[in-house]
Amino acid sequence: MTSGGEKMFEAQIKVTLKKTVADPQGLTVKHALDSLNFSGLEDIRMGKFITLQLKAKDEAEAKEQVESMCQKLLANPIIEDYSFEVKKI
Amino acid sequence: MTSGGEKMFEAQIKVTLKKTVADPQGLTVKHALDSLNFSGLEDIRMGKFITLQLKAKDEAEAKEQVESMCQKLLANPIIEDYSFEVKKI
Amino acid sequence: MTSGGEKMFEAQIKVTLKKTVADPQGLTVKHALDSLNFSGLEDIRMGKFITLQLKAKDEAEAKEQVESMCQKLLANPIIEDYSFEVKKI
Amino acid sequence: MTSGGEKMFEAQIKVTLKKTVADPQGLTVKHALDSLNFSGLEDIRMGKFITLQLKAKDEAEAKEQVESMCQKLLANPIIEDYSFEVKKI
Repeated sequence: MTSGGEKMFEAQIKVTLKKTVADPQGLTVKHALDSLNFSGLEDIRMGKFITLQLKAKDEAEAKEQVESMCQKLLANPIIEDYSFEVKKI
Repeated sequence: MTSGGEKMFEAQIKVTLKKTVADPQGLTVKHALDSLNFSGLEDIRMGKFITLQLKAKDEAEAKEQVESMCQKLLANPIIEDYSFEVKKI
Repeated sequence: MTSGGEKMFEAQIKVTLKKTVADPQGLTVKHALDSLNFSGLEDIRMGKFITLQLKAKDEAEAKEQVESMCQKLLANPIIEDYSFEVKKI
Repeated sequence: MTSGGEKMFEAQIKVTLKKTVADPQGLTVKHALDSLNFSGLEDIRMGKFITLQLKAKDEAEAKEQVESMCQKLLANPIIEDYSFEVKKI
């Protein structure tokens, strides 16, 4: 239930490091998998998969909000790529 | 280039906390978004999006390896859900 | 080299979940350590150790800046504790 | 209460990226702090502060266990430094 004709939306956001950027977190996880004898592993990169719910008056406004969250805080556009899907719930 | 007829595969893995599990990391990111005045945000949950490349003799073996990595290290099946896709590259 | 009589400071910040808050990230790392047969482990909790450098006109201003970063973004004071040290460099 | 004369120990572990390793996670947090207008920030690096409890027969064995956890899983010694303190609780 939302006020003023607002609706609820859910967004699923993927954030990944650009291919040219080294991923130390991935190297640490690779090292841990090596400790467990996963021998065929060549490369591993750690990204984020974020799910959020937000109120907005329509889908366009919801997308604009999510875009702004990605630009300002959830990702660093200089070194990370992001993509998202928004749907009404 | 791989030895013994092995091929390269890429896996994309999503790991998310089960809905019944509290997500303090999500609360901290929500708090940061509040600081930036994103007022419509209701809920946010932080998951992982992992990309890896591995050698295996066929797709079945590659999937088995990824399943085992998820079970043992990338996820905690008691509190997290995971899903993945594997393709030959 | 800083302008206007400003000096450089380094801060070391610890952020930990309050004891009453469940730590799913810690459970996942515990699960991974179990996979490696670390049998004596009873509990593990994941916190952050952040190092930053900033410009400020004196130590009091540097501390105020770091305090504000912790309050707004680096920690969520409702569920996390933080502490820090600041020194001139 | 532990069996067989074992005692409980607590370890506090710091894991930080070596200075020569780029820290994309730090850059993303710096970007978020820039969004909040923290203008004096020069550099920020994200490390881990891990607290764990374990059973061992004496302090030497507890330290050995923690050292091994760091070497195999909690850190990647090639790109990260770690240090820890262990005490009886």
